[in-house]
Amino acid sequence: MQLSKRIATLHDGGSDGWDVFYRARKMKAAGEPVIELTIGEHDIGTAPDILDAMHRSARSGHTGYAEVPGIPALRDKVAERTQARTGVATTRDNVVITAGGQAGLFATHLACCDPGDRALFIDPHYVTYPGTIRSGGAVPVAVQARPENGFQPLARDIEAVAGGARSLLINTPNNPAGVVYSRDTLNGIAGVVEAHDMWLISDEVYDSQVWRGDHLSPRALPGMEDRTLVIGSMSKSHAMTGSRLGWIIGPREAIAHFDDLSTNTNYGVAGFIQDAALYALNQGREAEDAVAAPFRRRRDKALNILAGQNAVKAVHPDGAMYVLLDIRATGLSGEGFANALLDARRIAVMPGESFGCAAAGHVRVAMTVADDLFCEALETLVAFAGELARDNMANAG
Amino acid sequence: MQLSKRIATLHDGGSDGWDVFYRARKMKAAGEPVIELTIGEHDIGTAPDILDAMHRSARSGHTGYAEVPGIPALRDKVAERTQARTGVATTRDNVVITAGGQAGLFATHLACCDPGDRALFIDPHYVTYPGTIRSGGAVPVAVQARPENGFQPLARDIEAVAGGARSLLINTPNNPAGVVYSRDTLNGIAGVVEAHDMWLISDEVYDSQVWRGDHLSPRALPGMEDRTLVIGSMSKSHAMTGSRLGWIIGPREAIAHFDDLSTNTNYGVAGFIQDAALYALNQGREAEDAVAAPFRRRRDKALNILAGQNAVKAVHPDGAMYVLLDIRATGLSGEGFANALLDARRIAVMPGESFGCAAAGHVRVAMTVADDLFCEALETLVAFAGELARDNMANAG
Repeated sequence: MQLSKRIATLHDGGSDGWDVFYRARKMKAAGEPVIELTIGEHDIGTAPDILDAMHRSARSGHTGYAEVPGIPALRDKVAERTQARTGVATTRDNVVITAGGQAGLFATHLACCDPGDRALFIDPHYVTYPGTIRSGGAVPVAVQARPENGFQPLARDIEAVAGGARSLLINTPNNPAGVVYSRDTLNGIAGVVEAHDMWLISDEVYDSQVWRGDHLSPRALPGMEDRTLVIGSMSKSHAMTGSRLGWIIGPREAIAHFDDLSTNTNYGVAGFIQDAALYALNQGREAEDAVAAPFRRRRDKALNILAGQNAVKAVHPDGAMYVLLDIRATGLSGEGFANALLDARRIAVMPGESFGCAAAGHVRVAMTVADDLFCEALETLVAFAGELARDNMANAG
Repeated sequence: MQLSKRIATLHDGGSDGWDVFYRARKMKAAGEPVIELTIGEHDIGTAPDILDAMHRSARSGHTGYAEVPGIPALRDKVAERTQARTGVATTRDNVVITAGGQAGLFATHLACCDPGDRALFIDPHYVTYPGTIRSGGAVPVAVQARPENGFQPLARDIEAVAGGARSLLINTPNNPAGVVYSRDTLNGIAGVVEAHDMWLISDEVYDSQVWRGDHLSPRALPGMEDRTLVIGSMSKSHAMTGSRLGWIIGPREAIAHFDDLSTNTNYGVAGFIQDAALYALNQGREAEDAVAAPFRRRRDKALNILAGQNAVKAVHPDGAMYVLLDIRATGLSGEGFANALLDARRIAVMPGESFGCAAAGHVRVAMTVADDLFCEALETLVAFAGELARDNMANAG
């Protein structure tokens, strides 16, 4: 029995570079001492007090259908957080709660693009972006951010493919590159988006993880409030990855339509999870900083380890829980290096090729294990890359 | 800023007949003693032991990303339940866990229909069906089930619009009609679906609420296993409406694709909710029967109240938590009657027109308040309809 072309072609058919991830999982399951620096999941779970708040809510009877666009108190709180961090006036009418950031990514594309419309996204990218766009029937179009520009996308590269596009999806702080888009970068993006009357979909799920300067939301730029849809989530900021709770921030007329869309696609989010999220947000910025602190600490340690050697070049990590490393001096692809590292040293990292074409020749290192283990693994990786780079130079010579 | 045509036209523009529902909510909020017999929500919440199981799971650390197609133990358990109830061999590879039945309805239509494809559904229908189909970019086509056939759809009516359609969505036990499709009805449906090489999407979320005979899943009919996708849910069977946990059962090749789709549309379901569902299903059929018992009891009482009068005719209620009443003898539409009843007697029921065209001149009464209150409200409704019917006859005479 034939399924839709849409679902049969969610993958574009190429290798998705996740073999090394699955191989590491298998080795670990077989008892081998693999250090996994692969996916973006904290080494802590959700805090017990948040889970207790969820239980109190459920046991007090919040187990029926919750308001589909989100409970008013949570929408208010998310609006307050957004306004405090960006300076843009925001109320509950600008907020719809979603079943996680991924559901927000999908919903925004359904809302901006009709089937067959072109939807732009920046490469390197979070792994689901093209499939998310295809799921809604739109056509994903990648725009390369170049390593030589520190993975900051250029307006002229976006402009080159913007004709007829309905939306542009960006992600800052960026996964996998670990870069934070500069004001210049965002101004350039805003210019193209306005010139082509496109929606800007801004994935800001790492907004609590900025290691240098401040997170800048493009919704705060002049003229952008009416054409920007921001995706947020409790996953990274509060170590609530498994709770599947996120949101979309946007113009009130647009947000009203998301209520309809949620009704027809998932009928909202569990009320007790919304109450848990409200409790967590009420703990304030300090609680978010505490969740982010290990990554800030490990990032500083990583910079120390990477200083004073040339085999591996770090894309300067300014945000998010990853360090992207340029390993082209080894002569290997990201995938080749990651596989070799796993086999030789039992350390698993993600090939840059898992995140599109732009980060080929790189590997992404998630800073998601305890400090000592992380430092040991990164030192081993650097030493291994050094050996490969010397061999590579010798062969070239 | 323009949104997609898709999202701007999720509603078809007509009145959706939900005004009476919102009006009742407002009156109640203003302190008026309105009896709400409107939406399909139990008068009990989720059982405390299920919520305690959820809390144990969360506190024991199941707070990270869960397996996207569902945790294996829950997929196994849902497969076991399905096999026990239908006799069709079912394993975890036939099961994907979804974020509620509504998410399953949406995902199956994305999987069966490409944008622009025709997707059939039976009218009267659960309120989201046409919007769910439109959300994925397909074109909803209604097939009327007629009151004179007890709202059992006829093969020839489906056949008449089946050309080029990719899918047919049915719901048995049926909301709003409260009927259970007979073997003849389902055989007729299977014949058309096979002749046109269509998918059958079978919404069986009320499978634990059957008051006469047995629930028959069309997946169990000869030749139908490979072209049927069944939607199930914990909402109605376990009073877990707010937990948003459901599933899709289908051929293993199709189910493998739903894994991709979940990755790109919501990244799966909270692990602690899956553990709660597993605990609940492990309580066995007795626990489901206990949740269904009040509706069975109230349905019997309703039949007694409705016997021996002619102003209101019940569509014989064989399943689900509703009684559909034919009030055409009053000379009013379903909407007119529901509004008059709310104003004159402070009782809220849903107009049949809220569920499409086929149930016009009917109202749906949800059996979702305590027995005494339910009986009192139904008696009041019947007496009110009797007065209107007498006036109507007098005017006609």
